[in-house]
Formats: sequence, C-alpha cells, structure tokens
Amino acid sequence: MNASPELSMSENSQLSAAVTEPFLGSHKRYLQGSRPDIRVGIREIEQSPTTSIHGDELNPVLPVYDTSGPFTDPAIAVDLTRGLAAIRSHWISERHDTEELDGPSSGYGRQRQADPSLDYLRFEHLRLPRRAKAGANVTQMHYARRGIITPEMEYVALRESCRIEELRGDPRYQKLLMQHRGHDFGAGMPKTITPEFVRSEIAAGRAVLPANINHPELEPMIIGRKFRTKINTNIGNSAITSSIAEEVEKMVWSARWGGDTLMDLSTGSNIHETREWILRNSPVPIGTVPIYQALEKVDGKAEELTWEIMRDTLIEQAEQGVDYFTIHAGVLLRYVPLTANRLTGIVSRGGSILAKWCLAHHQENFLYTHFAEICEIMKAYDVGFSLGDGLRPGSLADANDAAQFAELETLGELTKMAWEQDVQVMIEGPGHVPLQMIKENVEKELSACYEAPFYTLGPLVTDISPGYDHISSAIGAANIGWYGTAMLCYVTPKEHLGLPNRDDVREGIIAYKIAAHAADLAKGFPGAQLLDNAMSKARFEFRWRDQFAIGLDPQRAEAFHDETLPKASAKVAHFCSMCGPHFCSMKITQDVRDYAKQKQLDDAALALQQGMAEKAEEFREGDHEIYKRA
Amino acid sequence: MNASPELSMSENSQLSAAVTEPFLGSHKRYLQGSRPDIRVGIREIEQSPTTSIHGDELNPVLPVYDTSGPFTDPAIAVDLTRGLAAIRSHWISERHDTEELDGPSSGYGRQRQADPSLDYLRFEHLRLPRRAKAGANVTQMHYARRGIITPEMEYVALRESCRIEELRGDPRYQKLLMQHRGHDFGAGMPKTITPEFVRSEIAAGRAVLPANINHPELEPMIIGRKFRTKINTNIGNSAITSSIAEEVEKMVWSARWGGDTLMDLSTGSNIHETREWILRNSPVPIGTVPIYQALEKVDGKAEELTWEIMRDTLIEQAEQGVDYFTIHAGVLLRYVPLTANRLTGIVSRGGSILAKWCLAHHQENFLYTHFAEICEIMKAYDVGFSLGDGLRPGSLADANDAAQFAELETLGELTKMAWEQDVQVMIEGPGHVPLQMIKENVEKELSACYEAPFYTLGPLVTDISPGYDHISSAIGAANIGWYGTAMLCYVTPKEHLGLPNRDDVREGIIAYKIAAHAADLAKGFPGAQLLDNAMSKARFEFRWRDQFAIGLDPQRAEAFHDETLPKASAKVAHFCSMCGPHFCSMKITQDVRDYAKQKQLDDAALALQQGMAEKAEEFREGDHEIYKRA
Repeated sequence: MNASPELSMSENSQLSAAVTEPFLGSHKRYLQGSRPDIRVGIREIEQSPTTSIHGDELNPVLPVYDTSGPFTDPAIAVDLTRGLAAIRSHWISERHDTEELDGPSSGYGRQRQADPSLDYLRFEHLRLPRRAKAGANVTQMHYARRGIITPEMEYVALRESCRIEELRGDPRYQKLLMQHRGHDFGAGMPKTITPEFVRSEIAAGRAVLPANINHPELEPMIIGRKFRTKINTNIGNSAITSSIAEEVEKMVWSARWGGDTLMDLSTGSNIHETREWILRNSPVPIGTVPIYQALEKVDGKAEELTWEIMRDTLIEQAEQGVDYFTIHAGVLLRYVPLTANRLTGIVSRGGSILAKWCLAHHQENFLYTHFAEICEIMKAYDVGFSLGDGLRPGSLADANDAAQFAELETLGELTKMAWEQDVQVMIEGPGHVPLQMIKENVEKELSACYEAPFYTLGPLVTDISPGYDHISSAIGAANIGWYGTAMLCYVTPKEHLGLPNRDDVREGIIAYKIAAHAADLAKGFPGAQLLDNAMSKARFEFRWRDQFAIGLDPQRAEAFHDETLPKASAKVAHFCSMCGPHFCSMKITQDVRDYAKQKQLDDAALALQQGMAEKAEEFREGDHEIYKRA
Repeated sequence: MNASPELSMSENSQLSAAVTEPFLGSHKRYLQGSRPDIRVGIREIEQSPTTSIHGDELNPVLPVYDTSGPFTDPAIAVDLTRGLAAIRSHWISERHDTEELDGPSSGYGRQRQADPSLDYLRFEHLRLPRRAKAGANVTQMHYARRGIITPEMEYVALRESCRIEELRGDPRYQKLLMQHRGHDFGAGMPKTITPEFVRSEIAAGRAVLPANINHPELEPMIIGRKFRTKINTNIGNSAITSSIAEEVEKMVWSARWGGDTLMDLSTGSNIHETREWILRNSPVPIGTVPIYQALEKVDGKAEELTWEIMRDTLIEQAEQGVDYFTIHAGVLLRYVPLTANRLTGIVSRGGSILAKWCLAHHQENFLYTHFAEICEIMKAYDVGFSLGDGLRPGSLADANDAAQFAELETLGELTKMAWEQDVQVMIEGPGHVPLQMIKENVEKELSACYEAPFYTLGPLVTDISPGYDHISSAIGAANIGWYGTAMLCYVTPKEHLGLPNRDDVREGIIAYKIAAHAADLAKGFPGAQLLDNAMSKARFEFRWRDQFAIGLDPQRAEAFHDETLPKASAKVAHFCSMCGPHFCSMKITQDVRDYAKQKQLDDAALALQQGMAEKAEEFREGDHEIYKRA
C-alpha cells in the first residue's frame, strides 16, 4: 500500500518551484486593513522606466488582484503537511457563536478517522471541527443582514478595490486609469468598493462570500455581479487517473493562474482524505457536489441513495470546511419527462443521478423535499448553496428549453427558502447556448432567482469545437459575464474528450481570465482598464519585459517572443520581429511625433488643425473635383 | 545563390501528406451546377451507424463548406510548379471583354521577368496576363448591376447553400437541420441562397466576390453579411524569416483548416516571385497591401513614395492575379494630428507609412487624390478594394475615437466613388475594442459606408493577453460577426510577440472558425446548426470517431481523447474518461429513457404528465409545508 502514488504528497511536502515562483517582475504586497490581522495579499508589477531622447520617465508599479495565496510569497515556506496559516481563526472565534466539537459529527467522518489503515493517507495536523452553537446562525449573510461588517467583508473590499481609489490621486496613474464608459445592463456598478457596499450586497443576496467556519485558511473573496467577475476551476480524481498529490498541486496551480474558487469533483477512492489535504492548503474557496460522494457510498447505484446518506455527507464535508455545495434540488420529478425528446437528454451528472432516483422511486427529489433541513446544516457552518442546474442543456439544440427554464423557476423558489434562513445562494447556469440566446439566460435568472449571483459553465457557443472548447466557451463566458453573470466556471481544451493535464488547466484558466476581464471592462468595473492601458503604453514604448510581466501569462509571452527574436538585445529593440526595422508602425508613429515636435508643432493636434484650415478647404474642393471626374 | 532556402519549393514540388491528406472520415464531393464546368468541391463527412438494443440506425453524410481546394482531393495530384487547374479561364474568355497582353504591362513586372538571375526563383509556367478591353469593365459588380448572373455567382450560390435545401426534404436530416431562431440585427438573412440572390447582393454592394481575371485558379467565394461569415489569414516573409517554399505551404495549410481568403503581407526580397507561386497554387482569393511593396522599391523611405511607383505596383500585382488590395486612402493629412494624443498612435503599417508621407510633404495622401485612377485600374482586372483602416486603434484606450471614425467617414465617401465605377469594396475595421463598444463599430460602418461588407481584425477585447490574443480577439470576432461583419481577419497566439509558425496558424484559424460559426448560428444562417446537432447526437450516442470527424480539428480531438483513453475499444465505450463508468450522465439519461420505455411510458412526456397530475398536487402541498417549517 505504501508504494501507492497517493503517498507522494506526504513524502514530498514541498511544491516544485514551477508552481510557486513569483511572476516575472512582480512581488507580493499586503494591504493593511483596519486591524493588524486584516492583511490582503496583492501582486505588484514593477515597470521599467521609459527611455527616450527627452530623458527617462519612471513608470509606476501596477497592483493586481492576486488569487495565488501564500505560495507566491518568498517569505512564506508552505509545508503542505501542516497546511496554510489559519488567518480567519480569530475572526471566527471572537464572534462567540461557534463551538469546537470533539471530533467529526458525521458517521462517515468518524469512521474514516478511526480507520488505522488510512493513517498513511490522512492529513497529519487535523483541527477539530467547529459548528454554530445551538440556535446560532453563522453565515456572512446573517451578519450582513444584521448590519455587521465582518473582517471577511472588509478583507473583500480591500481586495476588490486593489488600491485603485488610492492611486486616483497620483498623477503617474491618471492616464493609466482612464477607461471607457461601461454598459452594465442596469446593474449599477459602484464607483468605489467599500466594506459597507460589500455588506449591503451580501445582505441583499446579490453577492455571496463563501467562507465556511472550518476553512480558516481561506483568503476571503466575493461573488456578485457588481464585483470583479470571478472564475472557477474544477479538479477531480476520477476512477481512472490521479492521486492526492496531483490534486493538491493542481489546486495550487489553479490558484496561481487566477482561479478564484475551485471545485473538487473527485469521484474515486479516498476522496475524504484528498479533500482534507486540499482544504488545509487552499487559499481559495472550495466547492463540491456532495451527491457524488453520497453515490460512492451506495456503490454507484443511484436508486439506493437516501436522505440519511446525503445528510451525513453534507455534515462530513461541512466539517472539513467545504465553502459551497452544488445541490441539484431543482430536478423535480415532473420536469424529467421534459428532457425525453432532447437531443442530449440530461448531461449534468448530478441531474441525471437525481432523475434516475426520482423515476426509480416515483417520488419527488429528496433534496427538494428536505431542502429546509439542508438549509439548517448550511447555516451551522456557513456553507453556501450553488443551486445546481441538473437540467442544463448539453447542446445548442437543447438550449433555453422548457426543462431548463422550469428548473430555473424552482431554483428561484429554493433561493427564497434559503434566504429565509440567511443561507448564501448562487445559481448555476449552462452549458451550451448559442450567442443570440445568452442574454435571455441572465435575464431569466435575475428575475426568477431574485438577483442571486449567477454562476455559469461557459457557455459554449458552438458544439463543433472539441479540442478548442475553452475558446468557444470563453466567447460565451465573456458575453454572459458582461450581461451579469458573477462567476464563470472554466472549460479546458480537453472538455468532452478527456481529463485536463496541467497545461490544459493553465490554458483554460487564461481563456477564462480573458473572458472575465473582458466582462469587467464592458461593465465598467472601476479601474478595470489599468493593466490594458499599462500594456498599451509598454507596447508603444517597446518595453518588452514589461509587456510580458503585465500579461496574463508572462512565461508564455516571453517564450513566444524568444522563438522569433531570442537575443536579449531584442527585448529593448525599437522594432519587433513581426515587421522588421523598416515597417514598424510604432516606430513610424514615433517619427511622426518627433517630426511634429521638430517643426515646432508641439501641440500637434492644435497647431496642425490651425495650419490646415486653409488647406482643408482646398482638399474639400479637391474632393468635389474628383467626384466630377468619376 | 542556388543553395538559398528559397529554392526548396522548386526542388520539392509535392506537398507533404500532412497538408494534403483527407480529413478523418471525409471525402471530396462535387456539386454540379447548370453547366458541366461549374463543379463546386465540398467535403462530406461519413458517419457511423447508431447501434442500440433496438437495432441499427444509419446516420447520413454531412456536407461541409470546403476551402481546401484540390489539395484534399486524392484524385488530383497537384504539381506546384504547374499550379492549379485554371477552372475560370473559359468563363473569363467567353465574356469577350478581356484581352491577353503580350507580357506584363507594369515596368516592374517586365523588369523582373527579364532578369535572368531570377530564373531559379521564377514560377515556370507563367501565363500571359489579361486585361479588360479598352472601355470595358470586367468586375463582378458590373455584371451584377447589368443583371448578369456569372458562373462565378452560380458557383458561390451552390457553395453557400452546401446542399442544405436539397436535404430539407430528406427525413434523416430533419432533426439535424433544426435550429434556433437567429437574431440578425435587421440584416434580413435569406431562407435560401440562389444565384439571383448572390447577384443582387453584389449589385447592391452588400457583398463582394473577389475574382481577378488573372486568378483563374480561384474557387469563387463571397463576402457579405447575409452569407456565411468568412475568415482571412495572413502570411508574409518579413526581412527576418521565411522562404517561398514556406509561404506556399502556409497558404495550403491555411486553406486546409478553413481560411477563406489569404493576405500575402510579404515585405522581404523577391516578393514578386513569391506572390506568383502563391497565386498559381491558390484556390482562395489573395489580398495584398501594395504599399508594402511600393515602399520596398524606395528602400523603405516613406517620404520617397510617389503615385507613379504605386501605380506601377498596382498594375504589377493586378496582372499577377491579386484579388483584393488594401488601400489606405482614408488616412487624410487633417486626420493625422487626431492621433497625436493616443496611447498607441498609429499602429497600422500602411497607415503610418502614409501619415509619414503626408507630414513629410505636407500634402494630401496620394492614394486619396488619385483614387479615381486607382478605380480605373481595379475595374480593368476586377481587383476589389479593401479600404484600409490606417487609423484603427491599437489599444482599448484608443478605440472608437475621433481619428478612427473620421477615417471611416472618408472610407464611405471612397466607397461611393468606387461604386460609381462598379468596383467592389469592402471596409477594414479594428483592431482593439472593448466588448461594449463593438456594436457601435458595425453600426457606424453600415451607415457611413452604405452597407459595404465590413472586414475586421479581431477585435481584441483586452490588451493583456499576449500569447493568447487569438482567444481575446475571437471573443471580439464572434460578436462583431454576429452584429454584421462579413469577414474576420484572424489573429494567432503569436500576435504582438512574433511570427506565427504552422501550429500557431492552425490555432488561429480554428479560433476564428469558431467565431465565424458562432456568428452564423447567432444570425440564423440557414442550416448553420447542422454540424452542431450532428455532433450532439454523436456525443449522446458515444460515437467517438464521428465526434472527431465532425469537429473543426479532427486530428486534435482524436489526439486529446487518446491521451486519456488510448485504446481503440474506448472509441466505442459507452462511457468516457471524464466520469468513469458509474457517473456517466449520458449513460444514466439513456437508462432514464429505457426505464420510461419499459414502463410502457413510450410517450414519456405525456404519460408522466398525466400520471403525475395527482402527485403534483401533493408535492405542491408538500412545498407549502416546507415553507411553513422554514
């Protein structure tokens, strides 16, 4: 047993440099909140000065929202066997509304802990689980609705603003902070992100702050359409591949490239232990689909699932620290036949499991009938709902059909129920939707689900792109994000074909960072265009290294540049490989500016316009002449 | 000299199998027009039968619009030293409005032909150039406006319809041909593409059919927003890399993956000879930016450019067979200062060359002042205008600004002038535009340029994606295509970083095929969803080989699948690597359907709804109970 690949993590508790080294030209910086223990890590990109014949101009550092956690802080040596520092522990305990249990309260959790044959797999430094005291409600929504700004909320406000407000007063940033007017489809984007704004959005249910009290390692983040658009990534050891070590590395890898949350969709053996390792080392919220594990417990036989097994699984995972659960409570028995004539039936795993259960028992979905009890569990740990779209379309042909929208109405009904207990809710969405039908999805979701944050998978805008589904779904994702989706679940190039490897994960994340950023620009999130403008300036000034550093994937940008012009001198050359020295448009544009300067036309626009007034008249006459000749 | 890499093409006149082998499960078929010499090559995908316990169901062949030309027809052995068959020769000669010249009429063309030191580079089987007889106008627009349906137009109609009309009557296709209602922003998509419809769109200027009389090898195609959205690719040997052999192979490679037209942007030495090789072997229209070559002729000194040099270059290239010219006639002297305060100035190479010329001479752009004469040349060979957007934005910050839109107005004025001489016109567009400002570009173009086809580069929706600009621009491209752009100029992952290699070209093309197809689906082009539906059906039925074949890149799809499940048996397995045997949602859905059948619920939707009427009442009461408990 000890030779199993699952052991590699405990044998090698340090991550490789490739997943932890700081990004090119960047350093970690911490923004200080109102109390010493609120410290928000961001990434800062240092730029080179602009050198020209007129002298040097210093270019300012650029703050970047950072999901990578302590792993990219050279001052912190993460020992995976100990997990990350529990930065939220004191915030949780000082609220005096939770208590430490003497061990797992789920039957399965106790059973796994008592099994000595699992010792070799088990995370060594297990913490005792916490739960709300009897009668207490420990959700961020509950606090928000009582007017309390938690440290988590303040953390999120600092993180979302990312120094933008502070920089507005600094003249070096003024041109860089210019951005076009967004069009946010009535969302009402804020001018600035304050802790009170964060609180009010959570209280209204328009945003969720996933933060299980048993995941104190978490760096709080927020999901809502008036905040930065977030992306989720998925990992999971299926029956066929993967080990614990690989899963933890994938989590760190995902956070490194910009994954805001991560869903552990493991379905193989030892998923309880894998999850523990991931949670103890994860700075990002972790979501799961508990029905997958429940199904494992009944040997994959959907019809043998029971509420009792599901309940035990929810508690097991809540006490490990899972931050949100996908719950397919909207797959109602009466909706199942609506899928019979679809081209691709039911493609959600959870949805099809529950449909099978419903038909086998000819009873209503037990997640629906027990929804109030699920809410009781959620609020005792602050696990958020991600209400699953078990009937989402699996093809363009099935998009926006009766089954999909019927379920969405039910998800709205469940949202109201959850909110009555102050449980946080987001709503999952498709999937596969042609471009012209994407907006309708967001509009229906916002109205049916009372503006609960929408969390969609893509959607893919065509079905014929296997091997490139990250691209076709990024198109859908950018659009749905713009229309108001709060979080985009990524798709890798391996979608529909196989399990993603590390390169696929990176490729999928960057595609989704692009989509999310395009949505933020389009909606007009404050400061969203800062990096674009800095990139454009660096590009115009041939600061190659700065271009690499500002890009979403500095390593790839540099490697691609090196393929054509590998010499270090080319990194400062005032032409690039695409055009060669004579044809560089940027060089010529600079010449145009220099020419204008030489000719004493310093204010080129004004001077030329004045000098040209007479000439312009001639040209207009000239035009007429040409027209006559034609 | 003979050891130069440029010789590799004539030494090895056969292309490698990798660029010519037929696609998986596909064969070439020819659609027969009204006369024997109108034969339109399409690709047909053969599908496997669906096997189930209820017996086998045959799945029909799927017709696919095919840009790859004779190269993928195993019955045709292309000899690159002889070029492709001149399928249009008779169509051109039988119109009796052209004459064969005794050699090139451009000074430069004659000079290159007379230089024996170029013999080793020269295409061996040069054809004599043709030109319109004195007073004749040989453009497709001219014929269209006189009510003539040319063979080229009939070819295009067959090609665009791609058998869809014929298949509508065949019951095997009925479910596959279902598609959602498009939203075409008032374009008025046709129900069916007839030769008369093609003629009328060309006559109205809403579509162009680029077809130089000196490019008889061309397989005609059409660019207009009521037709399939097209994509253009670029190749070009810069001063730093590439050879003739590489350029010709790149052209074949581009056509193979779906490039509809190709721009030869070569700027190195021997571009005259490279162009000849490309044209003689190209089934797709070739575009150029003649000012690049004109600039070569004055050693890269923009200020030394003259109308005479430009004129000679236009004639030189027109007589070789170039199908459309990018002409930056809208870069007016008075617009240049509008770019002075931009973040990235002028980024179009042509634009910056002309801006430099204008400022150096303090004169109006000679392409503008000589525009009527350019039209005279264009109509003598049927070269189409691609009116260049020399002042397009090079960054989000500069998008939709005064310079860009001022030039667009001038392009509209020039469109009118060209149309007065029945010269075909398309309008080039940006570039870099945030998502929320893309629609404005199409609307302005349609109104300022009288609905002349729009041809845009991307646009990129963010500037921070170097290494992934094919993705950020595919997002912009899908949207701008949906809004009405007729042709999308591709962007590769190397954009802004270096020259694309073969893999980059393929990656860029597929990204743009996705964008163009997403636009066609969104606009509701007839039959657009056929392949998507066929893919979805194959997916639901676990026909893996068919999924690969139907996809845009069969090779990659198969390779990705093999990475996880390499065994041949997995190609027919009723589960896939993502989920493992127990968790396959598609398998479970099939079980749901089988269950419904077993229970005599053949019309599952109806039977269940009826049987559930009573139960539904109970559930609704149950809901209320849950609400009360909450």
